[in-house]
Amino acid sequence: MSADVIVVGAGLSGLYAAREVLRAGLEPLVLEADDRVGGRILTQQVAPGIDVEIGAQWIGDTHHRMRALAAELGIGTFAQFEEGEATYELLGSPVLRENEFHAAHRHELAALDQALERLDELSGQVPLEAPWDAERAAEWDAVTAARWLDSQQLPPVAERLLEICTVGILAVPMAEVSLLDMLYNLQTCGVGAQLFAESEGGAQTTRFDGGTSRIPQALAESLGDRVLLGQPVMLIERDETSVTVHCRGGLVARGQHVIVALSPTLASRIMYDPPLPGVRDQLTQRMPQASAMKAFLTYDEPFWRADGLSGQLISDIGPSRMSNDTSPADASYGQVLMFLEGEQARTFGRWPEAERREALIAEAVRHFGPRAASPTHYVDGEWSDRPWTRGCYNANMGPGVWTNFGRALTPPVGPIHWASTETATRWSGYMEGALDAAIRAAGEVATQLRR
Amino acid sequence: MSADVIVVGAGLSGLYAAREVLRAGLEPLVLEADDRVGGRILTQQVAPGIDVEIGAQWIGDTHHRMRALAAELGIGTFAQFEEGEATYELLGSPVLRENEFHAAHRHELAALDQALERLDELSGQVPLEAPWDAERAAEWDAVTAARWLDSQQLPPVAERLLEICTVGILAVPMAEVSLLDMLYNLQTCGVGAQLFAESEGGAQTTRFDGGTSRIPQALAESLGDRVLLGQPVMLIERDETSVTVHCRGGLVARGQHVIVALSPTLASRIMYDPPLPGVRDQLTQRMPQASAMKAFLTYDEPFWRADGLSGQLISDIGPSRMSNDTSPADASYGQVLMFLEGEQARTFGRWPEAERREALIAEAVRHFGPRAASPTHYVDGEWSDRPWTRGCYNANMGPGVWTNFGRALTPPVGPIHWASTETATRWSGYMEGALDAAIRAAGEVATQLRR
Repeated sequence: MSADVIVVGAGLSGLYAAREVLRAGLEPLVLEADDRVGGRILTQQVAPGIDVEIGAQWIGDTHHRMRALAAELGIGTFAQFEEGEATYELLGSPVLRENEFHAAHRHELAALDQALERLDELSGQVPLEAPWDAERAAEWDAVTAARWLDSQQLPPVAERLLEICTVGILAVPMAEVSLLDMLYNLQTCGVGAQLFAESEGGAQTTRFDGGTSRIPQALAESLGDRVLLGQPVMLIERDETSVTVHCRGGLVARGQHVIVALSPTLASRIMYDPPLPGVRDQLTQRMPQASAMKAFLTYDEPFWRADGLSGQLISDIGPSRMSNDTSPADASYGQVLMFLEGEQARTFGRWPEAERREALIAEAVRHFGPRAASPTHYVDGEWSDRPWTRGCYNANMGPGVWTNFGRALTPPVGPIHWASTETATRWSGYMEGALDAAIRAAGEVATQLRR
Repeated sequence: MSADVIVVGAGLSGLYAAREVLRAGLEPLVLEADDRVGGRILTQQVAPGIDVEIGAQWIGDTHHRMRALAAELGIGTFAQFEEGEATYELLGSPVLRENEFHAAHRHELAALDQALERLDELSGQVPLEAPWDAERAAEWDAVTAARWLDSQQLPPVAERLLEICTVGILAVPMAEVSLLDMLYNLQTCGVGAQLFAESEGGAQTTRFDGGTSRIPQALAESLGDRVLLGQPVMLIERDETSVTVHCRGGLVARGQHVIVALSPTLASRIMYDPPLPGVRDQLTQRMPQASAMKAFLTYDEPFWRADGLSGQLISDIGPSRMSNDTSPADASYGQVLMFLEGEQARTFGRWPEAERREALIAEAVRHFGPRAASPTHYVDGEWSDRPWTRGCYNANMGPGVWTNFGRALTPPVGPIHWASTETATRWSGYMEGALDAAIRAAGEVATQLRR
């Protein structure tokens, strides 16, 4: 088979890159290893009319590309439910409603706000195109985010909250990322430490009618037979003028350029001939996928709303440390999403499902009352076991990675270009970043092929 | 093709595993991606009669398996040259000879000794078979080795020396490994913090006549046509009773078991069907190969010896921070090995060779005098660019990896067994560890096939 541009991976970034390539008047061919499109987007039907979003679920107010794409594809959106009080269960205290909690911890929460302001100020100094060029990059990349948190000497409640919120974004313990990477993650979102606020500072305000999977599915439909499923790419050969992409089943695709729209760690598993430069290889050895898992409790109705609760919990007992109300727009049933992130995903993700379910239901009962004891459905989704994903939400960098290897993240290697949300400069780690990266990669290709 | 046991990788660990398999009365087949055997062992001829060891070079006094293997293969050994004074260039001071340096820094060096004793005491608490079971594992795995060093508040000279020696062993900055991993690295050698002493506490006392490569070459010869070169393994399929291993060129090898004798990061690049468990996959995403490079200056004779110098330098100016006299046993020529490790390898490894050579020669002149200005030969060797290695000396673990994922390092996955020095419990990271891992992996296979 042949095309102008071979795209590896039919996640959001790969599909959107193919669309951009097509719009530039070039012919793309998308090779997807899995038997479905969507990558880290996966809407799963639990029962007729009941869905869960195992993967990406929300967009935010400034996710303009995603909003435009949904509009173009005719996919409606609805607002995340945000009414009512959250519930807090921290440092040995019984569950408190948000107003009680705020009243009890006024001073600690003020200290937290100050810490967030300091984070804002620091993250504002990280140049998104070149985090290694931040004036204090060497200093920030030599320490972990956990060490920074320790150095703040926050009151325990404030420290715990900041840590829970950070792990909620990075999906790894703060000891596993450098301070520079944490600051980059705030800065790439353009909303700074607001990201720690409820609804993640505008990152999680909006959902899609019928589920997020409709977006990659619609993109794939528009590409038609330019998307091939069940084609794991094993080898990419290149010479001066072309690339040859070999799939497991024997399919060979030739093109002028290739866009690898996989997370860096998955991109590293393809064999490249000639081999990639060492700096690029050592970078991808150092960008592990994080550890996130979503567990959904579905009920006949969102009964907590009547109690004035938002369905958002914060807990340091767990198993889940945060939750969200993910009921549908019409509230025709109730659903709580309980996040398992970082060590929570690693610990409880390895439990037998029945035990994990039981522990999560017990937690929901503590926060939302006895009606939480009887969900109609329980579903959870683990990503590290999935061979074509191997971890969510995205990649993280420990100390030394940005400054020593970051320069190799986005530049093409000859005719090989890199997409995936990890290579975005805006909203890296989010669906919006997947589009940002796709536009850049497709732009690189189009510029060269137009010469 | 078929055999009882397929071995992936003809580095020392793979070759030795194949030998052990053969000794157990089973038939091995070794598939090597490269066009040579030896992996991270690479003796390179610079000119007739002049060699350099681009890779592994030394064994130590307690490397009993390596000593026995060399004796069995009829490969002689000789002692590392250890006479004379080292030279020190630290914290803005001009180059001092060892005696001057020790006299000038008596108190700082006493503080260093105390810090090493503390490290010894801590590392003694790490169980080699299960570092995650150390009583303080959670605490030690939540911080970087750099943070531990900071907490010691050592005098600057002592701190700098400890850092240089640590990077000399780990080949990554101390900020990139957890304290637990650093302690594990000391404990696995069984000599504790002696490893920081000159000649690395018995890890670097002895060399091989004719070069280290003679060992894998002799092993490969003894295996005959059971070793196939130029066969990159891309896919390992398994079922209840067999494995099928697919190479790039189309070769298919069937066996009952497979031993993957690659570093964890390279092992992760093979496609497995069915896929490996998520915990194993996330582990290998988090075990990057370190960054080491060796540069050799060859001279007509080891002229520094006549000046009472050992050829060992310590410098915080660099490019090299440590060196060794690697002249041959008969001193028929002189040779200084200048190590580039961690950030030194990353920074200077990316310079054009001529500039790197010039900077290293200038450093040698500072330490060994004007005769160092005119080497007869300069050779350096980089490992991250080599597609079948991708970094030396071995893998390291950042915070959280041992405690969250370490349990998945050595256990077989069905008929798939893991070798490579990274999976050893004794002398992990060294040639001795490659044998230790090979013996374990071959033993697992033999036990099961004898049932």
